[in-house]
Amino acid sequence: MARSGARRHLSSTPVRSAGGVVRLTSEAYPNIVRDERFAQVTAEDVAFFKDVLGSDSALIDGVTSEAADIADDIAPFNEDWMRKYRGQGRLVLKPQTTEQVSRILAYCNDKKLAVIVLNLSRMNNVISFDEVSGVLVIDAGVILEVADQYLAERGHIFPLDLGAKGSCQVGGNLATNAGGLRLLRYGNLHGTVLGIEAVLPDGTVVDELSTLRKNNTGYDLKQLFIGAEGTIGVITKVAIQCPQRPKAVNVAFFGLESFKHARLAFREAKSQLSEILSAFELMDATSQNIVQHVTGYTRPLDGDYPFYCLVETSGSNGEHDYAKLEAFLEDVMSKEIVLDGVVAQDETQAQTLWKWREGVPEALGHVGGVYKYDVSIPLEEMYQLVEDTKARIQEAGLLNEDLADTASAAEHPVSAVVGYGHMGDSNLHLNVSTRVYDKRVEKILEPFVYEWIQKRKGSISAEHGLGVAKKAFIGYSRSDTMVKLMKQIKDLYDPNGIMNPYKYI
Amino acid sequence: MARSGARRHLSSTPVRSAGGVVRLTSEAYPNIVRDERFAQVTAEDVAFFKDVLGSDSALIDGVTSEAADIADDIAPFNEDWMRKYRGQGRLVLKPQTTEQVSRILAYCNDKKLAVIVLNLSRMNNVISFDEVSGVLVIDAGVILEVADQYLAERGHIFPLDLGAKGSCQVGGNLATNAGGLRLLRYGNLHGTVLGIEAVLPDGTVVDELSTLRKNNTGYDLKQLFIGAEGTIGVITKVAIQCPQRPKAVNVAFFGLESFKHARLAFREAKSQLSEILSAFELMDATSQNIVQHVTGYTRPLDGDYPFYCLVETSGSNGEHDYAKLEAFLEDVMSKEIVLDGVVAQDETQAQTLWKWREGVPEALGHVGGVYKYDVSIPLEEMYQLVEDTKARIQEAGLLNEDLADTASAAEHPVSAVVGYGHMGDSNLHLNVSTRVYDKRVEKILEPFVYEWIQKRKGSISAEHGLGVAKKAFIGYSRSDTMVKLMKQIKDLYDPNGIMNPYKYI
Repeated sequence: MARSGARRHLSSTPVRSAGGVVRLTSEAYPNIVRDERFAQVTAEDVAFFKDVLGSDSALIDGVTSEAADIADDIAPFNEDWMRKYRGQGRLVLKPQTTEQVSRILAYCNDKKLAVIVLNLSRMNNVISFDEVSGVLVIDAGVILEVADQYLAERGHIFPLDLGAKGSCQVGGNLATNAGGLRLLRYGNLHGTVLGIEAVLPDGTVVDELSTLRKNNTGYDLKQLFIGAEGTIGVITKVAIQCPQRPKAVNVAFFGLESFKHARLAFREAKSQLSEILSAFELMDATSQNIVQHVTGYTRPLDGDYPFYCLVETSGSNGEHDYAKLEAFLEDVMSKEIVLDGVVAQDETQAQTLWKWREGVPEALGHVGGVYKYDVSIPLEEMYQLVEDTKARIQEAGLLNEDLADTASAAEHPVSAVVGYGHMGDSNLHLNVSTRVYDKRVEKILEPFVYEWIQKRKGSISAEHGLGVAKKAFIGYSRSDTMVKLMKQIKDLYDPNGIMNPYKYI
Repeated sequence: MARSGARRHLSSTPVRSAGGVVRLTSEAYPNIVRDERFAQVTAEDVAFFKDVLGSDSALIDGVTSEAADIADDIAPFNEDWMRKYRGQGRLVLKPQTTEQVSRILAYCNDKKLAVIVLNLSRMNNVISFDEVSGVLVIDAGVILEVADQYLAERGHIFPLDLGAKGSCQVGGNLATNAGGLRLLRYGNLHGTVLGIEAVLPDGTVVDELSTLRKNNTGYDLKQLFIGAEGTIGVITKVAIQCPQRPKAVNVAFFGLESFKHARLAFREAKSQLSEILSAFELMDATSQNIVQHVTGYTRPLDGDYPFYCLVETSGSNGEHDYAKLEAFLEDVMSKEIVLDGVVAQDETQAQTLWKWREGVPEALGHVGGVYKYDVSIPLEEMYQLVEDTKARIQEAGLLNEDLADTASAAEHPVSAVVGYGHMGDSNLHLNVSTRVYDKRVEKILEPFVYEWIQKRKGSISAEHGLGVAKKAFIGYSRSDTMVKLMKQIKDLYDPNGIMNPYKYI
């Protein structure tokens, strides 16, 4: 049983693939095999699921049919957005009710069936919204942007935002504990989610769909499903506390001399902008050079600086917010924390400034293949990882930063080592851009990056969970004791292991 | 093994007791008995604990000594603040390190020892504070007010505040998932707590002391300890995200015609005050009459109104905030949502206004014994519970609201049915004030109140957990499935049951 489709779209910008068909994971990773304990789906199973779903259009059946168009329909469900993994699922089920999800899972659990794709796109209703309390209750299959649009019409905002909002589902956001762009302002999902309905592998419906801000009657079990990546159950409904939509959004962009100055600027922003600070983003010089190289946009500032920051405020009074932001910028410039800065005068300008941050991953994708690390590191040392990684690659003679030089690809596969991210959350994106994928680069990066983070008590996965890619590396972020305690929980809720039908050999 | 002393001080104002010595729980509640599976503490056990703690002053030993002064020292640890329960613990241990807690629990688990009091007051160090990220790491025994004072000196604020801050410990706040006064603004502990260190009953140290805002590497097990009331482990350290301390606090107080108008006012406050709204409190007319009756203070407004609200803003710019609050008050008065209102001109006036809200429980305590319910109800029907409860008591002929009339106590034991609370959190305090405790009143209140809340999908315990008092009533807030799932967790972490050594017969 695979997790819902929502997860596939967590981030916005696909890494440029080597092109063509993605290799089957079973071939690319021969150490990951399907556990032989699990049954294969049969025509009889398909008949059962058809009966549960009550409609032929609610499933894509590649089990009893080998038609090419059906294979094409199933294909997207077997691939991840980074085009790194490809599974061999032959059946996609699209339940419409929690009861259907429950019957499907209970059946799979009994029959030890695995690798069926559950897609919740048909469970996409807004169940209720209370305009006074701001509590929204929705099906897990609602698209994030649809939920946010619904709230916008009612003066509220979904407390989570990310690039993939147009395609990702809210249930998947919860399952992966997505952080995104609004975390600094509205906090994480463990705080904003008030209730969850979920189905355990044995079909038990966990009814924790509370809409209350305060409820202290026993263990808060719903929290276990937030960030569990679907391994202990399928989230079917969500109740979430939604804040008032800010009436005014202001953006400033500035250049700084060093990472230390960026930290000082962040500290001042927190102090002076306080309750209206909604984003504080960091970009290094290399990242901005690449955006310019790819897009040809005119840079927001005249000079070149080693670091750039983008500050966003969101509040209920535009005049007040603008006054605070201007006073902040004057203050940090007079103290020479910031060397140059600009404040957007309207929404268009604000969006243009955001492109210098949001455009980084896409621009990198245009330059070549990218090794991506989305990690948390205590703020003081956050950027040091980029410098240390770059030094290692340089030492090995693998770096040539001349983007125009494609001739030396084989000799110098790495074109850039870039750092950017959510400074407000100590969340760094380390991206290593390569002209061609090269095993030498991989060996330099891993386990170095994970060990480096472990030493600083950071997290090897700030936002995107572990999945297949980082499962083997959990030991770098979690102790043996913690891994053991997590296995207990997994065994408690999914004793047959149907939610993770593969094993490592 | 009893939970830490911190829990005993969760709320600020003790209910007036019938006076004298509190009855032993074993006598007052003959249906709750100590499970005979558990061993009694012996002199040999005491010797072991002395060795672990390494200091005679780290324990109060009423096992090997029967001296009166020792019994007096132990007494406060056996009583709750409401003076409703009294245990018979004879040993208080005050460990200074996590390792000591681990050795003590492991020993108790092996020997099936129970009813030893663990007090963490000696584990009271600030471990670290990062002024840029605002992350504070402290021992669980730190007093809440001490932590907040430490943060105040560094421009930050503890994201939790409650009346008992001068005595309660942070570990106890987490164990009971305290909500308090700042929840509307800073969110709940599930969102603000970044890491926990805890000791399981078998001595295993759960090291989840992350200081990262984003960390998605497996199940978020620390969440289980928040609100578990110490039943699956002892919290020993806490990492928490602390916001910037607001530079300006403003308070307004106003009178309204009905609860419906209070809801409209709350909606406008959320919309117009948005990011600076830090409290929206509701008080009914009866509650204010009682405060005036007891204190003799001059009322903030000239007229009498059925309802009163207190609005607090906290922000980084006093002028901006005051302008927003004044504009809000003008707006709601022009729309006749609010009938009269006043804005505090300085901190003293602000504190005076707060007394009309914070003084309610204390004033009630002066009038007589109080039946207290701290519940969550969807906002629309929040106050209806007070009206329905009052009607029932009136029907039964038990109410006489003349506070001066004490002669009719036996005939009309109830002097007031009062509602107040955190409107911003849908958190109502229903208080029934009595001249004398009377079984007829109890029978009218329970299970009526719990059934009423269950019908509205509310919570019978918004803030103070279940404890002994509400354990039998969990079914009103949680389904059988959820209770079963919770028992699984309890059995997983505390298979010997040493954290709850009593049973119901």
